[in-house]
Amino acid sequence: MTKMIEGGVCAAQGFRAAGIHVGVKTHNTEKKDLALIVSDVDCAAAAVYTTNVVKAAPIHVDKAHLADGKARAIVANSGNANACAPHGEENAERMCAAAARAVGCRAEDVAVSSTGVIGQTLRIEVIENGMAELAAQLSHSAEGSDAAAHAIMTTDTVKKEVALETVIGGKTVRMGGIAKGSGMIHPNMGTMLCFLTTDCAISPAMIKAALLETVTVSFNRISVDGDTSTNDSCIVLANGLAGNPEITEKNEDYAAFAAALKELCTILARKMASDGEGAKHLITCTVTGAADEKSAETISKSVISSTLTKAAIFGADANWGRVLCAMGYSGETFDPDKVDVHFASAAGDILVCSQGRGLDFDEDKAKAILTEHDVEINIAMGEGQGSCTCWGCDITYDYIQINGDYRT
Amino acid sequence: MTKMIEGGVCAAQGFRAAGIHVGVKTHNTEKKDLALIVSDVDCAAAAVYTTNVVKAAPIHVDKAHLADGKARAIVANSGNANACAPHGEENAERMCAAAARAVGCRAEDVAVSSTGVIGQTLRIEVIENGMAELAAQLSHSAEGSDAAAHAIMTTDTVKKEVALETVIGGKTVRMGGIAKGSGMIHPNMGTMLCFLTTDCAISPAMIKAALLETVTVSFNRISVDGDTSTNDSCIVLANGLAGNPEITEKNEDYAAFAAALKELCTILARKMASDGEGAKHLITCTVTGAADEKSAETISKSVISSTLTKAAIFGADANWGRVLCAMGYSGETFDPDKVDVHFASAAGDILVCSQGRGLDFDEDKAKAILTEHDVEINIAMGEGQGSCTCWGCDITYDYIQINGDYRT
Repeated sequence: MTKMIEGGVCAAQGFRAAGIHVGVKTHNTEKKDLALIVSDVDCAAAAVYTTNVVKAAPIHVDKAHLADGKARAIVANSGNANACAPHGEENAERMCAAAARAVGCRAEDVAVSSTGVIGQTLRIEVIENGMAELAAQLSHSAEGSDAAAHAIMTTDTVKKEVALETVIGGKTVRMGGIAKGSGMIHPNMGTMLCFLTTDCAISPAMIKAALLETVTVSFNRISVDGDTSTNDSCIVLANGLAGNPEITEKNEDYAAFAAALKELCTILARKMASDGEGAKHLITCTVTGAADEKSAETISKSVISSTLTKAAIFGADANWGRVLCAMGYSGETFDPDKVDVHFASAAGDILVCSQGRGLDFDEDKAKAILTEHDVEINIAMGEGQGSCTCWGCDITYDYIQINGDYRT
Repeated sequence: MTKMIEGGVCAAQGFRAAGIHVGVKTHNTEKKDLALIVSDVDCAAAAVYTTNVVKAAPIHVDKAHLADGKARAIVANSGNANACAPHGEENAERMCAAAARAVGCRAEDVAVSSTGVIGQTLRIEVIENGMAELAAQLSHSAEGSDAAAHAIMTTDTVKKEVALETVIGGKTVRMGGIAKGSGMIHPNMGTMLCFLTTDCAISPAMIKAALLETVTVSFNRISVDGDTSTNDSCIVLANGLAGNPEITEKNEDYAAFAAALKELCTILARKMASDGEGAKHLITCTVTGAADEKSAETISKSVISSTLTKAAIFGADANWGRVLCAMGYSGETFDPDKVDVHFASAAGDILVCSQGRGLDFDEDKAKAILTEHDVEINIAMGEGQGSCTCWGCDITYDYIQINGDYRT
């Protein structure tokens, strides 16, 4: 059993965090732009990165630094993606070195992330100059996590932070995370950054396995706009201070840890989809009765990624034809004449399409259902036993406004 | 050498067309909603349809009717897609039968198309009742083609019509087309309908081959919103009245015919992209120096389909990072450090990214270039000899407005 708790990345024992403004964001001196997360002791560490061929410089650095499965700290800036930028890897390495000096560890034990505009040179001097002050503000309290969570935000409108505790190997284990990401979010990692900490004792191989399992069923099942970014990273640090017997194989403890990590990351993923740029609705699409889980996932992702479906939800228009259309071009084969579609929310549930044909439904009721913030598209396929849930958001005037003028 | 001429689908000898309002569009009695195109003599016919698993009823009917490679007429309505609708195939057959009675041919020699809302029962009675009047208005003149072109429009803001003449086998051959489609447009056929006519003498096998070649390099290289519809169809009728030696193999005459058909359809494809729902810009993305043509096409399509790139063009924001990002998630492998990106238009040409790194460019000049209606994104990859051009449009507030409230 897991229990939600406060504290974000500082919830687990032995983790400190901080976030301040150093000047990467030049337009707004109020907004934090540099975050630091540090463990008191060495950690098993793992990461998952964007599948984009164009990878930001920090990702190349992290691959090298985390190759040994060990780390102590994560440093991250917002306001500049350090992607396709002059001196990219050199500056990413300098960020790690500055953080290492400030906290007293090896630069190779620091992971680094950046998010923001692509193609501009990172102002590395302001980061280096601000690092001592950032380190001075490191705190084990919830305020430390809160500051770090704010410091990685770009167009995010709400902070994404969560923590939980569970029992593994007879010991209380805590884990928490902070995340950012509201545009460029798409299955296989959008511009999202997610930093996870836990005091669970777990080997590098097992933390990596658990992270891969988790990302597949959480962050890779959300989409905001179909654009997969150059910078996406999800990094986890496990420092072992919970004192549980170290997890070194896929036993019962591993299963409990992986289940808790999935719960944690699914909550963060839903928060990201819900805070998609300009979004007014969280869309949860559940496909049941598909040929298998993979087919269910492909179809669900196609529906939440359909611009036309997203526009219909924005307009609270029960245009289920677009749902069938998106299913149809997903690449999966199925019999359209077996498909039922429901729209649902706190305001009710309505069947709009039965056996692939439109029903005469109550338009007022449908409108009321789709006017809620959290709406569900539930699809029954009649093909088999596969099911999957994915999360997305609507597309709005604000999305266009935000992204029509992002750099200035 | 080809020459652009007037007359659309009535430009070729022996073709008549008409379009009227019969009542499929219930909200606006001014808008035409039923079109008819008829050849005076039997035609070789071919068609290409949507790849969507969910296919509208008319597509199933057309596959049967065109199986013998022969046809005489095309009947099409707007206002209702006859997809996922009760009595779909029955009503599509009734449309063909009504058209056949009115023009005096077999129902099996009529092709049928529908476009509009998915999932609602087609008002077949108003179509049947209006068919005699529609047939009475059939005209060999340009007005006939103009009326038919208007009758297939949905959210289109401009009529799409084009015609040209060329010389094949020593004879003047004409060909023309009308098309609709502004939403749901994506590579592999968006909701587009395209009807092509020619007086070229060409066998069913060769007209089919030429159509496939053409669609691949024209309509399948445009994208408006990534949604591939249930109804897309491109149908060609060739009645042989030009008197050229019939084309029955891939000889010089075939090559000339296919080249002219590609020219015709590329113009129609550009018109569709340019009239994407709510679009303020036509985006032409040309990739050169790719590993091969297929790779160039995949990368170019990924760029024109990127919602973030489309939003940047809407904002006249030279955010080339999004171009590299979209190239990177296209699925093709390449070296980002060899990529150059130019933005260009009638207002000039500017290099914004060289060898994968951002340049300090003149933002005012870039803004002026991207403020033009027709903008180009030109990408040089340095990998090989492959090149391809695809067409798209920006995403705007109007797109959201149109699609947030399409059914009402």
